[in-house]
Amino acid sequence: MYGAGDVRVEEVPDPTLRQPTDAVVRVLRSCICGSDLWPYGSMPASEQGRRMGHEFLGVVADVGSDVSGLKAGDVVVAPFVWADNTCDFCTEGLQTSCRNGGQWGHDLDGGQGEAVRVPQAQGTLVKLPVGEDSALLPSLLSLSDVFCTGHHAAVTAGVSPRTTVTVIGDGAVGLSAVLAAKRLGAERILLMGRHKDRTDLGREFGATDVIAERGDEGIERVRDLTGGDGTHTVLECVGTRQAIEMAIGTARDGGVIGRVGAAQYAEVPMDFGTVMRNITLTGGVAPARAYIEELLPDVLDGTIEPGRVFDRTVGLEEVPDGYRAMADREALKVLIRP
Amino acid sequence: MYGAGDVRVEEVPDPTLRQPTDAVVRVLRSCICGSDLWPYGSMPASEQGRRMGHEFLGVVADVGSDVSGLKAGDVVVAPFVWADNTCDFCTEGLQTSCRNGGQWGHDLDGGQGEAVRVPQAQGTLVKLPVGEDSALLPSLLSLSDVFCTGHHAAVTAGVSPRTTVTVIGDGAVGLSAVLAAKRLGAERILLMGRHKDRTDLGREFGATDVIAERGDEGIERVRDLTGGDGTHTVLECVGTRQAIEMAIGTARDGGVIGRVGAAQYAEVPMDFGTVMRNITLTGGVAPARAYIEELLPDVLDGTIEPGRVFDRTVGLEEVPDGYRAMADREALKVLIRP
Repeated sequence: MYGAGDVRVEEVPDPTLRQPTDAVVRVLRSCICGSDLWPYGSMPASEQGRRMGHEFLGVVADVGSDVSGLKAGDVVVAPFVWADNTCDFCTEGLQTSCRNGGQWGHDLDGGQGEAVRVPQAQGTLVKLPVGEDSALLPSLLSLSDVFCTGHHAAVTAGVSPRTTVTVIGDGAVGLSAVLAAKRLGAERILLMGRHKDRTDLGREFGATDVIAERGDEGIERVRDLTGGDGTHTVLECVGTRQAIEMAIGTARDGGVIGRVGAAQYAEVPMDFGTVMRNITLTGGVAPARAYIEELLPDVLDGTIEPGRVFDRTVGLEEVPDGYRAMADREALKVLIRP
Repeated sequence: MYGAGDVRVEEVPDPTLRQPTDAVVRVLRSCICGSDLWPYGSMPASEQGRRMGHEFLGVVADVGSDVSGLKAGDVVVAPFVWADNTCDFCTEGLQTSCRNGGQWGHDLDGGQGEAVRVPQAQGTLVKLPVGEDSALLPSLLSLSDVFCTGHHAAVTAGVSPRTTVTVIGDGAVGLSAVLAAKRLGAERILLMGRHKDRTDLGREFGATDVIAERGDEGIERVRDLTGGDGTHTVLECVGTRQAIEMAIGTARDGGVIGRVGAAQYAEVPMDFGTVMRNITLTGGVAPARAYIEELLPDVLDGTIEPGRVFDRTVGLEEVPDGYRAMADREALKVLIRP
């Protein structure tokens, strides 16, 4: 990406092992993230450009001498940050703050390409018991970010069979949050979104109510549907100031907001009223690596199909058009098949 | 209180039972709260005035026909909001949001007086197994608000033997939070405060480090003391914008801020950086009623002495001077003995 709206497909040198802890992975599937749309909308023009893509699944091509448990030919999924999976943060399940971790793209390879050098490969990659042509690849790919992100919102908010849930946003993360909340046993899931094709998938994922209104009207509607109280948990999956305001407004007293939207705001109105109501704001960037093993069995046996958020598949040459389609809301989430 | 700096002691009609769920309590001890200093500093002048005091301990004088388990002569403590202790919020331990509860003072009697009509007496009052002249009265009184408030900060932040703790503020709530964190097993407690007599008591309560610096300097000092990381939990016990900024700055990645300061700010800088760091903002007004039975044994057997935050005792006539002394930081917390 060279700037807002300027995505180019280019030849770059093949990745090779540089550290004994590296692996090289040939990409089978990757995708475009809702968060990629923020720079797509506003990145200043740059000579240098920046490699894109932080969600991918592929086949191990080569491993460094310090990597055990992985070999060429293994099918693996990568979480959207790399991590050693052994430091204190990783041990606590916060691989996004790994002391030896980092983000794809930028100076490293991005997932939106043919191959990636993976640092800290042993800690980062998770082996998948499927073949290269498995029909499950889209759902397995969703474990690299989007489904784990929805799951993180639900887990940090404390969703359980005893909690009502509001999900703010009908993008791929919001729909994943609906599915995650349903998987965690929630019986009442209110989805706030106004795109019927998306909220329809949300209903299939488990949403019991759909609220098209936004802002104060949306808050009022959620309160009407919950006897005036709001819901025990709110999953904020957008990242705008309006979305976080709606989250606060729809939370029941004592309620918890799990926010996973990439905050495009600097300040949150957590004022005296939210102190009096004991509102909790939690969540953050999802440590996908912490969740993959736990979620994998439900994907493998078809209990959940998070890959249904992909509604368009493109080849590498069509990636720029994939960005455009997602930005124009023509596509919900674009799968890339290099 | 008739306005900023204007506290008057006046004769008012004796309280009497109005509802069958009421009790009347003769006050043995009450006190001035740090939160009383906000209106003392800024309340617009008013003809009407407003009764003050929400922390008291006393002797039951009379009970309504629907009140069981309490009789005249019982020594009782009242949490700082009244509650039925049976509604869904109360059952969840959030008595501050009770569907039939409310706050002292305003239109009701305040605790800073000779007697109080107590609505929802059966749910609100907790019987104490002590006499009217017990030396434990100050510590027992602290269960009505200040110690439970510090405890709430620690509980909501998840303080345990495995967490490091920063306490922001060396007022009575901050010192209570230190004591509560110590009681919950924390081994490393960093107290941010600049009043030596107060931080000295903080050290006796369990603080292992005292940081006098504020703002960015204070944040840097906490980070220096924690290998650059910050602490797992931060207890925000002030309520100013600077204090909440310091809380965010001193929290370790994945850390939790339990805030109990009465927020004098409208917005919190919980921006993209705090999303990336998975910072949680929790806490709120403390449901003291939920904690009293749990904390009572440790007060009765002297394991903890939260009443040590009281460093001055006044009679009713001296209450206006008690406000002045607390506002001038001449007294930490003023006990009232009507």
